[in-house]
Order: sequence, then structure tokens, then C-alpha cells
Amino acid sequence: MRARELVEPFPVVTTETDAMDAARAMAAERRPGLIVCTQDGHPFTVLPGSQVLRFLIPTYVQDDPGLARALDEQASDELCRKLERSKVGDLLPRRKDLDDLPVVDGDATALEVAAVMARMHSPLVAVVVDDKVVGAVTVNRLLDYLLPPTAPR
Amino acid sequence: MRARELVEPFPVVTTETDAMDAARAMAAERRPGLIVCTQDGHPFTVLPGSQVLRFLIPTYVQDDPGLARALDEQASDELCRKLERSKVGDLLPRRKDLDDLPVVDGDATALEVAAVMARMHSPLVAVVVDDKVVGAVTVNRLLDYLLPPTAPR
Repeated sequence: MRARELVEPFPVVTTETDAMDAARAMAAERRPGLIVCTQDGHPFTVLPGSQVLRFLIPTYVQDDPGLARALDEQASDELCRKLERSKVGDLLPRRKDLDDLPVVDGDATALEVAAVMARMHSPLVAVVVDDKVVGAVTVNRLLDYLLPPTAPR
Repeated sequence: MRARELVEPFPVVTTETDAMDAARAMAAERRPGLIVCTQDGHPFTVLPGSQVLRFLIPTYVQDDPGLARALDEQASDELCRKLERSKVGDLLPRRKDLDDLPVVDGDATALEVAAVMARMHSPLVAVVVDDKVVGAVTVNRLLDYLLPPTAPR
């Protein structure tokens, strides 16, 4: 089984996409993340939902989540409004964390996809065919395929 | 908004649950992970899908995913059968990675949940009320709540 047979359509954004639109799309479609491409269509990385939160929540609160209790709803609204002034590129971790991309060729085997996902702790891997992102393989789809069928009891 | 109002029912397994059953449940229900409790019902950790793959795929293949191409379907089946002889506890990273648990009290605020998720890079956080796991808050549910409604254009 090859990546191109396991692929599902997946929303693709660019580093220039409005960050609020991207976060809303992820939440509304119940996606584990989004595929991020450069403006010329090359896969750049995968943006998981928790990374959006890492952008929104100040580091000192991440380090000590109990501090969040001191912040009221208004502070919460203000934090989220950071997304309105941002682009997807702003949400991404700094370049040093981006050495590896969770991207495979359409001809990658299921095990190769699994190895990339495992290595990157990623819930999805973008699939590229003819230099174009055609969708993603999710960890659930992959497990569905890899696990042996239930034996009759 | 408190964690207990954002919580969704979520499958809970224990460290003694059959690993194959747990992985199948995660894949079939399209969950981003499972809540793992100890046998006496205390929350232990969250098991994300990519961690199942980290258990299945040999480290040398994770380090160089191209090597996976040399493995045939039979090798793939054999790797997956590791799950048949394992329990959920075997899938978890070693203890040193478990210092923090993605767990909050039912009274935690939405921002506190967000801070825990951000800190742990976790797509879900288990919610505990009266010393019992009552479900989880997912990153998508939380973003849905936190993001301001779309302004009319």
C-alpha cells in the first residue's frame, strides 16, 4: 500500500494565510492539524492544533498553567485576538525545529509513512505527487490500514 | 468557562488494556489519542496515535524512514503483531517523559486547559472531577470556544 492510496483530502494553507481563518478551519473541521505550504506551493510543514495554543498562551503561563486562573475572560479574549493580527507563518515554531518535514512522496510505503509520523510525533503527514501536495495521511487512517483485522471469536 | 463544561466523553483505557484493542479503538473512533488510567482509576497519561507508531516502528527505521521501503508487507504485518503481545503500558514512553500529565481539574479555566495543552503539545487533556476521569477536552473543542465568532462582513 502506497501513500497515494491512503491519502485523504486535507486543507492546505500557506504561511501567508490569516491565522484566525486557519485556526477556525482546523477547529470547525475537527482536523488534527493543517498542511502549510509556501506561497509557491511547496510543502513547508504541518501545523498541529497545540501549536496554535503555544502561540496564544504566554510562555510564563505555559510554564505554570495555574497562573491562567488569574486571567479573566477579557484577558482570554485579548490573547485570542493575537490571531487577528497574524499569519500562519507567525504560528510556526522557529526554523531550528523545522529541520524535518512530515512530508512523503506518493510512492512512500505505509511503513515509511508510519516511520515519518513516529519520528516527528505528528498526527498527519502531507503527501506530495508531482511536486504538489495532494492531501494527507492521518495516524488514524494509517492504523486502520496497518492493524490486522479482528479475528472472529 | 470551566473544563467540566468543555469536556467530551472519551475512551479510557488502563495500562493493562490489550494494546491491539486500544489501537483499534483509537483508529476506529478517529480519536487523537486515548486517556490512560492506572488500574485503580487514577489518570496516568494520554497516549497519542503517533506514540503507537513509535512503539511499532524500529528506532533505526524512525531515524531513516527511507529504510522502510526495504521492508515488505510481511515485515509490516509482523511489526503490527507486536501489539498482540503487549499492553497499553508497554506503548508509553519511559517514565522520564511522564513528569507532567495532560490532566486538569473540572474547575480549570479554558485558558488553563489551553496552557496545559500548549505546554505538553497534546491534542487533548483529561478532566478529573472528584478524583475520577470524566472525559477530555480536545484542542478543536477548545479552539471552537476560545476563538471569537466570525464578524459579519
